[in-house]
Amino acid sequence: MENSMQALLLIAHGSRREASNQEVRELAKRLEQMIEGQFDLVEPAFLELAEPDIRSGIGRCVQAGARHVTAVPYLLSAGRHVAKDIPDELEVARLLYPDIRIVQTDYLGMHQGIAGLILELATKP
Amino acid sequence: MENSMQALLLIAHGSRREASNQEVRELAKRLEQMIEGQFDLVEPAFLELAEPDIRSGIGRCVQAGARHVTAVPYLLSAGRHVAKDIPDELEVARLLYPDIRIVQTDYLGMHQGIAGLILELATKP
Repeated sequence: MENSMQALLLIAHGSRREASNQEVRELAKRLEQMIEGQFDLVEPAFLELAEPDIRSGIGRCVQAGARHVTAVPYLLSAGRHVAKDIPDELEVARLLYPDIRIVQTDYLGMHQGIAGLILELATKP
Repeated sequence: MENSMQALLLIAHGSRREASNQEVRELAKRLEQMIEGQFDLVEPAFLELAEPDIRSGIGRCVQAGARHVTAVPYLLSAGRHVAKDIPDELEVARLLYPDIRIVQTDYLGMHQGIAGLILELATKP
């Protein structure tokens, strides 16, 4: 049977403030509790200021056995990061790991459900 | 009857890239279509690099008749902005508008529903 292990790579901006990077790592861990049946593992990665960077994050997925990596930009707005930096890094990773399928999804801010979450925050007692 | 008009102030970071600021303004407009019964208006505001800033955003809410302003940080991580810059600006606004009730909610990244949205992005065909 073909190995088809799937990884979710959560790509955050990265912050000088280590607690913010830790929030992202904890979110990745929380996602790992929720992925049953869809993904086999979740790894965090950072555009800058924190480790691992994107290609190291993909390297970790591959080392864990993943053959597919789905990269989700944990960013609220489009821009250079979404349009150029992430695609460029994924392209480098494809050259490094030619047998691994790597795809980039919409960034978080694109999800229409964000508006509902904002309203919930606004109306929480 | 006492006027109790309620405004939601959506506070984003602000970007050098005007299209990103425009995304926030459009999100505020979309929220305004969803607020029936809970809020009467939604205004965007920016920490830096875009207009209006927080106190001008609150000024717009007040000019529109709001007596309560609920400020939601449209940010993914805690940090100086959430812990200091926004509270400081809201405090200035309270001095400028002593009759207006101004509260700050949790920031977007705190919402537990974020994880579900990420999984939806990751599994979208």
